Amino acid sequence: MRIARFSHNGTPQYAFVQSDKSSGRDYLAVLDGYPFGSQPARPTGERFELDGEGIRLLAPVIPSKIYGLAKNYEAHARFMHSQGHSHEEHAPRDMVVFMKPSTSVIGPDDPIVMPSFSDDMNFEPEVAVVIGRIAKNVTEAEAMDHVLGFTCVNDVTLRDLQGSDPMWTRAKGFDTSCPLGPWIETDLDWRDARISFRLNGEDVPEANGTTANLIHSIPEQIARISSFATLLPGDVIMTGTPNAYGSLHPLDEAQVTVEGIGSLRNVVVKGQ
Amino acid sequence: MRIARFSHNGTPQYAFVQSDKSSGRDYLAVLDGYPFGSQPARPTGERFELDGEGIRLLAPVIPSKIYGLAKNYEAHARFMHSQGHSHEEHAPRDMVVFMKPSTSVIGPDDPIVMPSFSDDMNFEPEVAVVIGRIAKNVTEAEAMDHVLGFTCVNDVTLRDLQGSDPMWTRAKGFDTSCPLGPWIETDLDWRDARISFRLNGEDVPEANGTTANLIHSIPEQIARISSFATLLPGDVIMTGTPNAYGSLHPLDEAQVTVEGIGSLRNVVVKGQ
Repeated sequence: MRIARFSHNGTPQYAFVQSDKSSGRDYLAVLDGYPFGSQPARPTGERFELDGEGIRLLAPVIPSKIYGLAKNYEAHARFMHSQGHSHEEHAPRDMVVFMKPSTSVIGPDDPIVMPSFSDDMNFEPEVAVVIGRIAKNVTEAEAMDHVLGFTCVNDVTLRDLQGSDPMWTRAKGFDTSCPLGPWIETDLDWRDARISFRLNGEDVPEANGTTANLIHSIPEQIARISSFATLLPGDVIMTGTPNAYGSLHPLDEAQVTVEGIGSLRNVVVKGQ
Repeated sequence: MRIARFSHNGTPQYAFVQSDKSSGRDYLAVLDGYPFGSQPARPTGERFELDGEGIRLLAPVIPSKIYGLAKNYEAHARFMHSQGHSHEEHAPRDMVVFMKPSTSVIGPDDPIVMPSFSDDMNFEPEVAVVIGRIAKNVTEAEAMDHVLGFTCVNDVTLRDLQGSDPMWTRAKGFDTSCPLGPWIETDLDWRDARISFRLNGEDVPEANGTTANLIHSIPEQIARISSFATLLPGDVIMTGTPNAYGSLHPLDEAQVTVEGIGSLRNVVVKGQ
C-alpha cells in the first residue's frame, strides 16, 4: 500500500495511492485521518488525479526526529576514502548515527536550496524507514512491527563543511537538505531494495546499490536507536547511501529511485 | 514575565507565574493560549497555587529543534582538556553546534534516567534561549527580537560515550538528557546571567559561571544557526556550560540555577 501526503489548494491531507483498473492511472484516494493513529485511516471516497489541478505531493511526513546512518555500506566507506574524505579505508565497526532537523525536510519536486557558504554539495540516495508505532528498547526481532513503511530520501550533504563541522549540524542539517518522498510504501522487500540515482535524467551507476549490502540491517538500526531514544510515529531513519556520491550544482535535477517505492525528484537552486 | 507550562490533573496549559501581593506567594495565572502565537496569550482569570493539588510544572516547551553549543567558554574548554576529554587546550575558534532530539526533554522534578550502557554521566548547567519568532538569516543586531525568553537547562552528557560516538547522538541525545525549566523568563540580563549548580544541595563552585564569559554571544549563536536552519517558535539553543562538569549517580539531586530565572531540580534514577 502507498500512503501519500498531499495538498489540495493548500490543505494537507493523507491518501492511498491506488491504480484505476480501467485507465491504469494512479490516483489519490483521500483518507479520513492520519496513518499513524491508533485507529486505521479509511478512504472517504473522494479521489484526485495525481496531476490534478491544485494537487501537490508533500513530504509524506514531517518527522519529530530524523536519524541517519553514516558509512553503512562498505562500498560507500571505500569511496569516501578514495576521495580523501575519510582516513579509514573501511566502515567503522560500530554504528555511526547522526541527526537532521525537521526543518531540513522538503517534498517531491521542492527545490534543494544550495547555501551560499558551500561550494561542494553532494547527493546521497537512500532508503528511509518511517516509524509507525512507538519504539523504545525493542529487539531486532520486534523492530519491524514498529515500521509503517519506507520512502526515498536524498541525504544532501555539504562535503566542504563536513570536515570543519564536527557534528555535521550544518553539513547535513541545513534547510532543504532532506528531500523525502514521493510516498510511504508499506510493502517493500527491505532486505534487497534497489537504490538508484539519476542526475539530469542520466543514470549514475556508481551511486547505485541495494540494501542487501547494508552493514547494519534495518532491524539492527531500529533496535540500536530505540536503546537510547524513543522513536515516535512518523520518525524517520535514513539507512545510509550504498555507494558513491556526486556533486549537485544549481539547476541540476536529482532523482532518487527505490525499486518498489518510486522516484523522488528535486531541482537544485542557488541560495542567497 | 515568567511563562510556565503546567498540567492540572494531566491537561497541559500555559500560565504566567505571578506573585500575590498580600501573601507574597507565587501562583499560576492561566493563559487562554499558547505564548508563541501571533496573538498574545491573555490571563483567563483562573489561578492555581504552584504547589496546588494536581498541579505539576512541565518543561516550558517541547522544541521542534534543540541546538547546543560545545566548548563555548574558555574555562570549560580548559577543564575538558585537564580531564583528558579533549586534545585541545583551548576552545575552537569556530562555533561547534550539535543537536538533541525533542524526546530528550524532561521538565522540573522529572527523573533523569541514567542508561545502563553508561558508567559516566555528567551534569552541565546552562542558560537556554527560547525562540519566539521564526528566524532565518537574521543578523546579530536583529537576533534578540526573535527570542521569547530564557530558561535553565542541564545538558546531561554520557562522557564515556562521547569519544566513541562521533556525533554525540547517544552521548547527548538519550531520553531524559535535556531537563528544561522551571519556566521561561522573558526579562533577563542575558549579557551577564549567573549560572550555578548544586549537587545534593551543596554548591559546586567549580561548575559556576556567567554568560559574560561566553565565547560566542547569544546574538552570534542565533545569527549563525539561522544562517543554515530556520529557527521556529519554541526552538531552544543551549548556550554552553561555563566551567567544570561533574558526575551524576543514581539518587543524586541535580539543581541548575540561573539568577533571574530560577532553579531546575531533577533526581537521577537508574535505567534498565
